[in-house]
Amino acid sequence: MPRYALLIEYDGMPFNGWQRQYGGQPTVQASIEAALAKLEPGPHTIAAAGRTDTGVHATGQVATVDLAKDWDPFRLQGALNYHLRLTPIAILRVVIVAPDFHARFSALERRYLFRLVARRAPMALDKNRVWQVLDPLDLAAMQQGAAHLIGKHDFTTFRSSLCQAKSPVKTLDELTITAQEIPTGTEYRFTLRARSFLHNQVRSIVGTLHRVGTGGWPPARVAEALAARDRAACGPVCPPQGLYLTGVGYSEDLFA
Amino acid sequence: MPRYALLIEYDGMPFNGWQRQYGGQPTVQASIEAALAKLEPGPHTIAAAGRTDTGVHATGQVATVDLAKDWDPFRLQGALNYHLRLTPIAILRVVIVAPDFHARFSALERRYLFRLVARRAPMALDKNRVWQVLDPLDLAAMQQGAAHLIGKHDFTTFRSSLCQAKSPVKTLDELTITAQEIPTGTEYRFTLRARSFLHNQVRSIVGTLHRVGTGGWPPARVAEALAARDRAACGPVCPPQGLYLTGVGYSEDLFA
Repeated sequence: MPRYALLIEYDGMPFNGWQRQYGGQPTVQASIEAALAKLEPGPHTIAAAGRTDTGVHATGQVATVDLAKDWDPFRLQGALNYHLRLTPIAILRVVIVAPDFHARFSALERRYLFRLVARRAPMALDKNRVWQVLDPLDLAAMQQGAAHLIGKHDFTTFRSSLCQAKSPVKTLDELTITAQEIPTGTEYRFTLRARSFLHNQVRSIVGTLHRVGTGGWPPARVAEALAARDRAACGPVCPPQGLYLTGVGYSEDLFA
Repeated sequence: MPRYALLIEYDGMPFNGWQRQYGGQPTVQASIEAALAKLEPGPHTIAAAGRTDTGVHATGQVATVDLAKDWDPFRLQGALNYHLRLTPIAILRVVIVAPDFHARFSALERRYLFRLVARRAPMALDKNRVWQVLDPLDLAAMQQGAAHLIGKHDFTTFRSSLCQAKSPVKTLDELTITAQEIPTGTEYRFTLRARSFLHNQVRSIVGTLHRVGTGGWPPARVAEALAARDRAACGPVCPPQGLYLTGVGYSEDLFA
């Protein structure tokens, strides 16, 4: 019973997140499991490195699945993409992995991108791909606020009340923000990297830093919010459509 | 009767191109004219700098329109975007221009971007936004081929048989190609700049350079095809969905 790892890209907009749901709502996991069931009788259960929320996209999600048959990885990829052709899900690569490899538990790093656009005019091309606000933001202030969050901290403030993680202590290895001009506006790109994240951690951080960018909070208040270890001290959680799971790191480069 | 210039972004996918059609098919021009008719009795006729084909996108289209009323440009922009809210068209800016200014005839430069992606897996996020091919291309060969096209030439080879331009002689001021890695593939970006282009000129050039990138043509054959001044000497015209009208230049920076 060989185990396969899948590298997956998807547009999160039409899905109720990654995770299969009892009500049968469209999810990314359910779509891929349905495609697998066309290849081998199921039920199939795939495990993902990051269980993305409704509206969150991925360019580098990783999931593992066990199949009965010895599939050539390249043919398995093609067959899955064929059955997924009516969905905005693409299997970018398939590799055979060791039986003890697990997309989620073997992961050593998750990488996320958050795209925040400030402009007055609607987004004709990037609708549902960015979080849009109207007014330009103070990049330097957001970078100063972000600096307080780098490293190992108790991130209770930036954690959803639904979060199931055992500990609120996480190590944020990277949180960089860049700005680039777009027609009549500015796009701010947040890049975050950690071994793992709490539920809603990225969106809580971006929502809080946005508040710093508007001038509503001084940058130092981010440090105070973190130290409070209190969900109520957090800025507003920002919407999901600007968030992308861009990659997952393992002890070896699986898809090289 | 003040004249307004509109800076426009759109997703070309659901439209039969820019130009209004007799059969009433959805076009970008017809959509914007319908929005104008909600503001002032029509019919309205707007003139665009580039009459993009079916499936071609814009991030910097410019059009001019005459209106009876003195509109505040900012309020006119908001009203148009309100009436266009169900379409993937956004009015990025509105300015008042001189009565003799014309979006098309006053233009001194058009800028286009073409996005060509080489990878095996389908595009989940950029479907209808790029031209996808399966195999990687030889960037240096495409750049060598492109160098033959820079400058003032008779571009008959790279001109649609439907082209209505008086002369096939055009001056191509820029044709640069860059490559960047994307998950499991490569994206090639072609940037083109000229005072004006012939019909299908960009797609004929990119289709021809793609053939060079596959190794099907040596770079020097681009020079031979150009010198032939014969449509039959052109490589295949590539599909429209990777093409973006990114900007139009005038004697002054209209939307600064």
